[in-house]
Amino acid sequence: MKKLLFFDSTLRDGSHAIKHQLTKENIADYCKAMDNSGMNTIIVGHGNGLGASSLQVGLSLFSDNEMLTTAKKHLKRTKLGVFLIPGFGTIKDDVVPAIEAGVDLFCVASHCTEADVTRQHIEYLRKEGKEVYGILMMYHMTTTEKLVEEAMKMQEYGAMGIVIMDSAGASTPDLVKRTINALVNKLDIRVGFHPHNNMGIAVSNALIAIEQGASIIDGTLRGFGAGAGNCQLEALVALLHKTGVNTGLNLYKMLDASEEIVSKIMDRDTGLSALSIISGMAEVFSSFAPHVKKAAEKFGVDPRDIFMELGNQKVVGGQEDMVIEIAMNLAQRKKQDDISYIFESLL
Amino acid sequence: MKKLLFFDSTLRDGSHAIKHQLTKENIADYCKAMDNSGMNTIIVGHGNGLGASSLQVGLSLFSDNEMLTTAKKHLKRTKLGVFLIPGFGTIKDDVVPAIEAGVDLFCVASHCTEADVTRQHIEYLRKEGKEVYGILMMYHMTTTEKLVEEAMKMQEYGAMGIVIMDSAGASTPDLVKRTINALVNKLDIRVGFHPHNNMGIAVSNALIAIEQGASIIDGTLRGFGAGAGNCQLEALVALLHKTGVNTGLNLYKMLDASEEIVSKIMDRDTGLSALSIISGMAEVFSSFAPHVKKAAEKFGVDPRDIFMELGNQKVVGGQEDMVIEIAMNLAQRKKQDDISYIFESLL
Repeated sequence: MKKLLFFDSTLRDGSHAIKHQLTKENIADYCKAMDNSGMNTIIVGHGNGLGASSLQVGLSLFSDNEMLTTAKKHLKRTKLGVFLIPGFGTIKDDVVPAIEAGVDLFCVASHCTEADVTRQHIEYLRKEGKEVYGILMMYHMTTTEKLVEEAMKMQEYGAMGIVIMDSAGASTPDLVKRTINALVNKLDIRVGFHPHNNMGIAVSNALIAIEQGASIIDGTLRGFGAGAGNCQLEALVALLHKTGVNTGLNLYKMLDASEEIVSKIMDRDTGLSALSIISGMAEVFSSFAPHVKKAAEKFGVDPRDIFMELGNQKVVGGQEDMVIEIAMNLAQRKKQDDISYIFESLL
Repeated sequence: MKKLLFFDSTLRDGSHAIKHQLTKENIADYCKAMDNSGMNTIIVGHGNGLGASSLQVGLSLFSDNEMLTTAKKHLKRTKLGVFLIPGFGTIKDDVVPAIEAGVDLFCVASHCTEADVTRQHIEYLRKEGKEVYGILMMYHMTTTEKLVEEAMKMQEYGAMGIVIMDSAGASTPDLVKRTINALVNKLDIRVGFHPHNNMGIAVSNALIAIEQGASIIDGTLRGFGAGAGNCQLEALVALLHKTGVNTGLNLYKMLDASEEIVSKIMDRDTGLSALSIISGMAEVFSSFAPHVKKAAEKFGVDPRDIFMELGNQKVVGGQEDMVIEIAMNLAQRKKQDDISYIFESLL
């Protein structure tokens, strides 16, 4: 099995949800917070990608170049990606400046039956030594056979992987299964999936895609994105870790970025909170949350660590005493760690 | 395959999310709106069920009796249900008055390893000729073998079905599959599932349960419920209809109740909107939504019908002209229907 790659479209698909009004501060804060999370690529820009900012589809608050250079400044480990629909974006006016701004990875997209239009962009970018992925949008609108054909074209042009987008959130679990399976069997390159949550199954459709051999998942933190939103990456990662799949991602850093940054950019918060996800992962009933928050604050420990420990101890009802005991023990352990750290640094 | 039954816990599990402050108006409005939807049972009351209202777990705004009689007044076709945890609720003080208030169906619940405590309540209710289901909470906390044993006890006591609750939202798809499969194989009565959405997979876990033979799904409109919320029933029903399963439920009535009533009761709206669900079901990109809303208003037609028709016509981008044409046609058709209706009523 190929190592799973995660593409983070929070600062691209999320743009749709706020009419492309991302600020430089949003971008800087998010990239700073996520750079050490193990995320493979953060995709930044207008919802419709490079060159799309316009009166017709919506004007970005800042230019592509301003957004990309802001992101690049704060991404040391994580790659900077962009989305590009040929027609909106051209090589001369958009791709060349994006390369200059430090973009590492390009997602070149077309409607699911129109891979031909991506040829020159994909070929150009490969020649320039960039990472390039082919994206097929609204994948549900064609047959699996035709989709495989279009994907094979992109593979021929030099795409390093093909990501299909469930742009309308129209996927049934069965459609995901059949489609990803066919693509994985026919292509030599990675296959990826970008779900939307219109019928409430984006996270599970991503899981199904992975089961069928998809090795790229493109989603967003807190599900921030167009329409019903995307596959909420931190929920997916929690589930994967729970089932023993090591994603290489730091879940707590993702949850922090979700709570502290993304929830504040969203105009209407429809995502799952960190404590919802952690309590599910820890297998602890949500009624513990207020007690956990209070104890975490009082003893200066992470409420998520308390939840995980409550889970280990298999609590059932609202045993408040146990919450306090666990918080005290965690605080004690933390103090010892701090002391050992001071000693170690003296040696 | 047994006909699927849906239990609607919006006015019970939702109570948790608003500290049990449901008003009589909330209950009346909801029951009126849902009575003609084809819903099997609406469960009403305190989040922890009959007799649970207390300082310790939270006081309901109105007494159990006030809530139940209010609901009963507006439920002609749909059954009135209550939730009951022996210990909180007693036969004399709670069950007898509930029967007098017109409750049709009782969900008698215990922790997943403590079915014994439900014996006298289940036996009493069957003797009284009531519908009774056995509920096993926090089902993930025990082994499948033990869970089957506990469920068999409830079956022996006279329960007409067993519903397992994923109270902590801790289920992986695999756990749901194994557990429901084992219960369906071992029991002679219906098996049901009540998911929570902590890791974003409540709807798909319900689908998996149905695939494995579960024939009761207990969820809520808009996912309104404790913690991360529940399986959003209207999303699940949209998906089932899309895959050709006839639930007997009127999806539009559910979407109306979700938008017009439930979204206003929730203190923090984390549910999927009607247009999100319908656009996914119709396979149409969400960017059409503002155009659809405008055209629906202008021509006095249902925006959901426009979405479904856009789907039939396989639209791709933002063809605003087509939205208007479809809305005009729908308005024309509606006018003709109205005229035929007037003629028919004259005959």
